[in-house]
Amino acid sequence: MVAVSTVTPLEQDVLLNMNKIEIGHGSGGKLTRDLIENIFLKYLKSDELKPLEDAASINLDHNHKAAVTTDSYVIRPLFFPGGNIGKLSVCGTVNDLVVSGAVPKYLTVGFIIEEGFLMKDLEEIVRSISETAESAGVKIVTGDTKVVEKNKGDGIYINTTGIGEIVKPMDLKNVSAGDKVIITGTIGDHGTAVAIAREEFNIDAAVESDCAALNGMLEPLFDIAGVKWMRDPTRGGVATVLVELSEATGLGVLISEEDMPVREDVRFIQDMLGYDPLYLANEGKAIIITSAESSDRVLEMLKGHPLGKDAALIGNITADFKGLRLKTIIGGERVLDMLEEDTLPRIC
Amino acid sequence: MVAVSTVTPLEQDVLLNMNKIEIGHGSGGKLTRDLIENIFLKYLKSDELKPLEDAASINLDHNHKAAVTTDSYVIRPLFFPGGNIGKLSVCGTVNDLVVSGAVPKYLTVGFIIEEGFLMKDLEEIVRSISETAESAGVKIVTGDTKVVEKNKGDGIYINTTGIGEIVKPMDLKNVSAGDKVIITGTIGDHGTAVAIAREEFNIDAAVESDCAALNGMLEPLFDIAGVKWMRDPTRGGVATVLVELSEATGLGVLISEEDMPVREDVRFIQDMLGYDPLYLANEGKAIIITSAESSDRVLEMLKGHPLGKDAALIGNITADFKGLRLKTIIGGERVLDMLEEDTLPRIC
Repeated sequence: MVAVSTVTPLEQDVLLNMNKIEIGHGSGGKLTRDLIENIFLKYLKSDELKPLEDAASINLDHNHKAAVTTDSYVIRPLFFPGGNIGKLSVCGTVNDLVVSGAVPKYLTVGFIIEEGFLMKDLEEIVRSISETAESAGVKIVTGDTKVVEKNKGDGIYINTTGIGEIVKPMDLKNVSAGDKVIITGTIGDHGTAVAIAREEFNIDAAVESDCAALNGMLEPLFDIAGVKWMRDPTRGGVATVLVELSEATGLGVLISEEDMPVREDVRFIQDMLGYDPLYLANEGKAIIITSAESSDRVLEMLKGHPLGKDAALIGNITADFKGLRLKTIIGGERVLDMLEEDTLPRIC
Repeated sequence: MVAVSTVTPLEQDVLLNMNKIEIGHGSGGKLTRDLIENIFLKYLKSDELKPLEDAASINLDHNHKAAVTTDSYVIRPLFFPGGNIGKLSVCGTVNDLVVSGAVPKYLTVGFIIEEGFLMKDLEEIVRSISETAESAGVKIVTGDTKVVEKNKGDGIYINTTGIGEIVKPMDLKNVSAGDKVIITGTIGDHGTAVAIAREEFNIDAAVESDCAALNGMLEPLFDIAGVKWMRDPTRGGVATVLVELSEATGLGVLISEEDMPVREDVRFIQDMLGYDPLYLANEGKAIIITSAESSDRVLEMLKGHPLGKDAALIGNITADFKGLRLKTIIGGERVLDMLEEDTLPRIC
């Protein structure tokens, strides 16, 4: 007897085709439907998500205004310590809603996939989207898939748009001198983890991205009247957010280097690379501006949550100057501007 | 005197940099803000669009459920006869809402731009988005910009997500044998115009894309009780939509080749290329399923609108068979399946 392959050439062809994204998966025809049924609907199930309809019908509580936000995610690498582009695309949009005083409810997801992308990687990303959305309590209600040719993309880009119900309207106008600046945890973890994952630097360190949905931690703060404004310091980092805050309010922000929570290994690596953690992207942190009276309560509530255990009061709002200043550990004051050069592009 | 340039090398550098998108425009820092202020806010103005906030606050009428839809646009070329990717990204999403029985209200827009993309092209696209949204009566409420390196994109990709108020819930369950199938105008114009614009074929013809927002024409039909379902036949064309309709309802669809409105030049070109207009993308057409009693009224209303002058009754819903069949001009019947091969990828 001769040994025979149990896989015929035709079957092999089918298997190979099934393993990679082809142009036809974006046709709107049969292959698109196969993709929807075999990958998307396997993980993304909701009453609202009906693949045959062009729009999803959603319920919003009529007692609140709706909030809407959109972000495209182009991070590289797609998989990094602490997450992947799928998890990030849910967390980032959920966080944009919650820092706007909204309870995140619904997400849409749009994929732009490069031809040849591995089906198993797509499946892993969609699985992450599903898990992250479920644990954050948001529903994926509709989606879209496009496929582009080789070298017209970079694996996969994802857009998510989020819709929520505003229960705590945040307004920069409420921010006033004497208010406190709180950060919910260590800064620069995401930027550092991704920089290392790119292997452009010869560094071996166990820094994970802080990528996390913050609604579970931040929503309880909506009940505190002294909480005035929140923002998640992603691209541009803590410094850029606070410079923008200063410009929009005409007030100054004084932050303290000593009080800034930075992981030891992150500080070490960024010292070596010459980056400042204040400008690095975070994907699971929020800056909170609160009245002085409420600041203890806010800190206490944050520290009671696993994602907030390193929360710290890092500065004050002041009418004494405009702009952002850092009180350095050696006692000086340094003026900080917003991010000028993009040292770590495609961080989210 | 010697002739001196009035532009210093430094100024020249600045001018050159200003003319093209750089990686830094996606940093979230200074260049991103320049781009927002100089291009986006120049055209996209609305009370809801506040660049400093992460989410927009929107008002929805509490008497209706909300509809949400998302689409990424990856069309090439970016500029084509009858439109560009900006106009398309508004029309496509507005149409997805209106065929779902919703009045389109709000759009988000997310850009993924390739490094080196010409600023003047971006400006033209943003201008189109603004004009198209205004004439369709929808507001751009929030946006996002990412920049990717050369050869990791293709000029620009745009995601739009649309939110509307459902005033005429459409349900395939209402479709029954005896219903009529109406198309609002000639088919295959968009697919043909884009195919020609790609210059892959040596054809010189004046076919324009039908790219248009249909809410002005379709919303009045919401008042007609006999109107049961609508769909815009984009990727996959009329045939794919009707095959899906048949599969979802378990009913058959019989359409008539003779009654199908196809422009003479489109038919000629597609005959030459070997494509079937029934599978070509449209970007300004809708398929309407209506009761037989209401079909005259629907046709009359459509024909009274400039975008509906070529509207035609093209077929019937039947319980006699399942699937989609075409009654050919010579009298035969051909079974049609959904689009299998993608002959014109990146058509939207």
